[in-house]
Amino acid sequence: MQDENTVFIGKKETMNYVMAVVTQFNSGSDEIEIKARGRAISKAVDVAEITRNRFVKQAEITDIITETEEIEQEDGQTVNVSSIEIKMALTGEEE
Amino acid sequence: MQDENTVFIGKKETMNYVMAVVTQFNSGSDEIEIKARGRAISKAVDVAEITRNRFVKQAEITDIITETEEIEQEDGQTVNVSSIEIKMALTGEEE
Repeated sequence: MQDENTVFIGKKETMNYVMAVVTQFNSGSDEIEIKARGRAISKAVDVAEITRNRFVKQAEITDIITETEEIEQEDGQTVNVSSIEIKMALTGEEE
Repeated sequence: MQDENTVFIGKKETMNYVMAVVTQFNSGSDEIEIKARGRAISKAVDVAEITRNRFVKQAEITDIITETEEIEQEDGQTVNVSSIEIKMALTGEEE
């Protein structure tokens, strides 16, 4: 999957990311990926759920993967942070 | 799956829930389920990741499902809340 099909969830309002995902689908992507770390994971799930329930009814969640990432901090220490990847794809069927 | 194998994520510290999951596995469950709603979803992912990386290395995540639940509030209005179910099972192999 190309990076341009990936939406990274950060500190903006949920609907900003929903619109980013909807725009990806409307511009011809069959498959998109939503990625988030730490507390943004809940928002990533909201983005996927709102997208498929309200805006792109032919889209469904095809895979969800979680991982633990080691992030290096400014002081050189590493902390473990959970991350999530939610894959969504068009099914061709409206639900 | 029986309810006794389900750990519901709430407002306590993450490690409380990790210990609940570890205890389930140690008391003979082959399969457990972690459930959370709303902002607790991020914590649910942390609980699964910490359990499999640090405490029960034979456990892996076998399925993750997200849904949208309608919750009725005291004033009778309903709000939509995302939820997650993370299924974990023992594989027999330490990773």
